[in-house]
Amino acid sequence: MAASKSNSVTVLHNAVIVTMDTEGRVFQNGGIVIEGDKIKAIGQSSDILNRFASRAQQSIDLHGQFLLPGFINTHVHTSQQLGRGIADDVDLMTWLHDRIWPYESHMTEEDSYISTLLCGIELIHSGVTCFAEAGGQYVSEMARAVELLGLRACLTESIMDSGDGLPASWSTRTAKQCIESQKELYKKHHNAADGRIRIWFGIRQIMNATDQLLIETRNTSKEMNTGIHMHIAEIPYENQLVVDTRNIDHGTVTYLEKLGFLQDNLLSAHTVWVNDDEIGFLSKAGVKVSHCPASAMRMLGFAPVNKMLQAGVCVSLGTDGAPSNNRMSMVDEMYLASLINKVCEVVSKGTTDPTALPAEVVLKLATINGAKTVLWDNEIGSLEVGKKADMVIVDTSLWTMAPVHDCISNLVYSMRSENIVSVICNGQWIMKDRKILTVDEGEVISKSKHASAQLLERAGISLPKRVCYL
Amino acid sequence: MAASKSNSVTVLHNAVIVTMDTEGRVFQNGGIVIEGDKIKAIGQSSDILNRFASRAQQSIDLHGQFLLPGFINTHVHTSQQLGRGIADDVDLMTWLHDRIWPYESHMTEEDSYISTLLCGIELIHSGVTCFAEAGGQYVSEMARAVELLGLRACLTESIMDSGDGLPASWSTRTAKQCIESQKELYKKHHNAADGRIRIWFGIRQIMNATDQLLIETRNTSKEMNTGIHMHIAEIPYENQLVVDTRNIDHGTVTYLEKLGFLQDNLLSAHTVWVNDDEIGFLSKAGVKVSHCPASAMRMLGFAPVNKMLQAGVCVSLGTDGAPSNNRMSMVDEMYLASLINKVCEVVSKGTTDPTALPAEVVLKLATINGAKTVLWDNEIGSLEVGKKADMVIVDTSLWTMAPVHDCISNLVYSMRSENIVSVICNGQWIMKDRKILTVDEGEVISKSKHASAQLLERAGISLPKRVCYL
Repeated sequence: MAASKSNSVTVLHNAVIVTMDTEGRVFQNGGIVIEGDKIKAIGQSSDILNRFASRAQQSIDLHGQFLLPGFINTHVHTSQQLGRGIADDVDLMTWLHDRIWPYESHMTEEDSYISTLLCGIELIHSGVTCFAEAGGQYVSEMARAVELLGLRACLTESIMDSGDGLPASWSTRTAKQCIESQKELYKKHHNAADGRIRIWFGIRQIMNATDQLLIETRNTSKEMNTGIHMHIAEIPYENQLVVDTRNIDHGTVTYLEKLGFLQDNLLSAHTVWVNDDEIGFLSKAGVKVSHCPASAMRMLGFAPVNKMLQAGVCVSLGTDGAPSNNRMSMVDEMYLASLINKVCEVVSKGTTDPTALPAEVVLKLATINGAKTVLWDNEIGSLEVGKKADMVIVDTSLWTMAPVHDCISNLVYSMRSENIVSVICNGQWIMKDRKILTVDEGEVISKSKHASAQLLERAGISLPKRVCYL
Repeated sequence: MAASKSNSVTVLHNAVIVTMDTEGRVFQNGGIVIEGDKIKAIGQSSDILNRFASRAQQSIDLHGQFLLPGFINTHVHTSQQLGRGIADDVDLMTWLHDRIWPYESHMTEEDSYISTLLCGIELIHSGVTCFAEAGGQYVSEMARAVELLGLRACLTESIMDSGDGLPASWSTRTAKQCIESQKELYKKHHNAADGRIRIWFGIRQIMNATDQLLIETRNTSKEMNTGIHMHIAEIPYENQLVVDTRNIDHGTVTYLEKLGFLQDNLLSAHTVWVNDDEIGFLSKAGVKVSHCPASAMRMLGFAPVNKMLQAGVCVSLGTDGAPSNNRMSMVDEMYLASLINKVCEVVSKGTTDPTALPAEVVLKLATINGAKTVLWDNEIGSLEVGKKADMVIVDTSLWTMAPVHDCISNLVYSMRSENIVSVICNGQWIMKDRKILTVDEGEVISKSKHASAQLLERAGISLPKRVCYL
C-alpha cells in the first residue's frame, strides 16, 4: 500500500470508525485515507469519497465493519512464547527456578527469533500493531522478527547486574557492561525497519539491579531520549526484600522514588503492591504503568488500577509472557481488565463495583494510553490526521458479538479474536481477511513446535503428568 | 449419523481422546465408535479400526485433533441473549430495574425463541453440548429452539410467587399456580427431542419465593425425579434481607437448610456469599453449585470455589446470561475460573495461590462435574462406553495454542473458541468444520438484530452514549 505513484492513496470507507481521539469521536459511516505510512484524512464516508476517490489506488468498502487504532501491548515477553504451558499451576519459586530460568538460559538466538515470530502471529491476530518487549536476551533476533512481521515495537534487553541464584550459564555483567550492551543495540536497531523499531533500556527487577545500574540507566536513557522498561512491585516478597536490604519503609516504588529513578520515561510493569503514597510518587513523576490482568490474577495479586487512574497515572495493558498468562491476546486482556477491576473492589468496599473501569476507559488503556506508555502517542494510539496508519478492522456481525446495542461495550466485553479481520501497521497490511501476509503462519508454528521441544530437552524441563496417558 | 442400517457405526480415529473418566485416561492416538446416539467403543486407534472399520458407515481420521466430552454450561439465561450489552457498567439496581426487568417483561414468545437460537449458536461454537437454563418465561419456545439446535438441555421456567417492585405486566402467581405451570411444562416437554430435553423446577431467588413455594417445589421435584435450579446467595444484600425478614442468623443457605430445602437435586447458581457452616450444609445435602466466574467478577464477588471443592461440594461452570457476562463461552469461563480462584486467595492468604484450581480440575468442572450438576452423569460428562455421544473436536495446532507441552493445561488456559472445530450431540453432528449444521447462523443473527432493536424500543430502554457519535 506504500504509495507507488506520487500522491496515490488508499481509501477505506463505509466503516464505523472509533478514533480514540481526545473528543472520543466515532464516525458511524466513516472513511479514512492512508498515504504512505500516515493517515491523510478522516471523516464522513461521503466527504472522504468525494475528496479522494479519484486519487485512490485502492478504495475498499468495509461494509459497516469497525475500524480502530491498533492495540498496544505494553508488556510482553516475546522470547517466552515457546514456553507456553511449561509453568502452569506451580508456585512462584518452581515457576522461576525450575521452569523459566532453565528455559531462558538454554535458549538459542534462533529460538528467540522463532519465539518472537510465533508471539507476533498471536499479537497480530488479536489486533496488536505495537508492543513493548519486557526484556529478553537476544534483541537483534527480536528485531529481525519484528522487521519481518511488520509490527511496531519497543525492544528491550533483559538486564541484570546482580542477584542470587541465577543460572550458571548467565555470567553476571557489571552495570557498565549492561549500559554498553544496550547502547550498542540502540546504535544498531533504534529507528530500524522504517522507524518501526525503537530500543529501550531495561531493568529486569529491583532484586537484580544495583544502585549504580539504576542510576546509569536513568541518566543514559534520558540522554538518549528513550524509555526504561522494568518489572516493579510484583509480589510482597519483593517489597519485603527491599525493606530488609535497602533501608526503606515500604517497597520498590518508595525506594526508586528516593533514588530519583522515577521519571516520565519509565514503564513500570505490573505495579501490584503499591500503597497510596507510592501511587502519588508514580503520578507525580509521570511514570507509566502496564497492567497485566491475567498474569496479575494468576501470580501477583490485585493491581490498584482504579486508584492509579484516579490519581492521574497513565495505565495501559499488557499480556505478559506466555508462561504467565497463557493467552497473549489484548482482546482478552481488555475483558479481564474490566472484570478484575470490578471484583477487586470487594476487598475494600465489601461488594463489587460494576461501574468500575467502564468499557470506554478500558478501550483507552488498550490504545491511546498504550501509546503514551511507549512514549509514542505523537504518532500512534488514535486515528487522527498525521498519525501513523496503525489500525485494525473488526467484524462485529459474528455470533461472538451479536446483537450490538452499545458498540464500545461490545468491543470490550464481547469481542473475541475471531472478530479481528485485518490489521494495518505503518500503512502496510500485515493481516488481511484473517490471513497474515508477512510470515507463513503454518511454517512458524511447525518450527516452533520443533524448537520448543528441543529447548525443553536441553533445559531438562520435564512436566509432571496431570492425567493418565495411554 | 444415526444408524441407517442395522449395526452400522461411525468411527473417529487418530485423535487425542481426553476421556474425563474416573481414571483420567487420555488416549494419545485414540479411536471412538458411535452407534446411534451412544458411544459403543473407545480405545487405541489401531484396535478400534481393527474391530470396527469394516462396519463403519463413516470413518474419519482426525489427524491428531483432540476429542473431549462436550462442555456442560450449568447456568445460562438463553432468553437474555438479545440483551447483550444493554446493562454494562451500571450498578446492580439500574441493571435490574432499568434494564433487565423491562427487557424480560417486554419479551415476546418469538423473541425468546430467537434469543435461545442465538445463544445456542454461541454455546455450540464454544463446545457446549448441554446446558441448564437458569429460568425464563417461555419454556416452550426455548424447547422449540433446543430441539432445532440439536443441543441437550435442562429447561426451567422463571418462577416467582412474591417480591417487591416487579414489572406491572408480570402478574404475580401463587405458589400453587407456579407448581401447576411447571407440571404442565414437564408433561409437554420432559424427555422430548429424542430425550435431549428435560424440564426442571425453578426458583428465581429467595426474595421472590414464599416458604410454601419452596416447600412444594422441593416435594414435587423429588416426586417427579427432576432437579431445581435456583439463584442462591448472590449478593450481601440478599443475605441481609433473609436475616432481617426470616429470623435467621446468616443468609439464604442457612435459611434453606433450616427449611429442609437443601437436597441433592438442587442446582445452586452463583453461591458467592456463603460461610464455612453453609459450605458444610451444601456438602452434606449433596447440593450442586454452578460457579459463574465472569458474572461473579462483574457483579457478585468471590465465590469460595476452592473451599467448596475441598468440602466435597460438586462445583461446575456456567456463563450466566449475556447482560451479566457478555461472552457466553465455556472456553473463556474455564480460563477465568482458574484465574479468579488463584487471585482470590490474596484475600485470606495475602498472596495469590498459582497452584489453586489446576487445569485438570477446571476441565472436570466443565465436563463431568457439569454432568453431575444437571443430574445426568449416568449418560454424559465423560467419554465412556454406553454413554451418549456428546463430544467436541478441538484443533490444537493453531496459533492460539501452539506449542503444546502440557495438553490439559493448554486446553484450559490457551484454547479459544477458534480451536473448537466440530460438535456432536446425541450422536448427531451439530457443528462440522466450524459450520453449524442445524440452523442458519446468518439468518438467526439477522433476525436477532431486528427483534432485539424492537424489544428495546418496546421496553423503553435507551442506553447513554459513551462516546461522541458523528
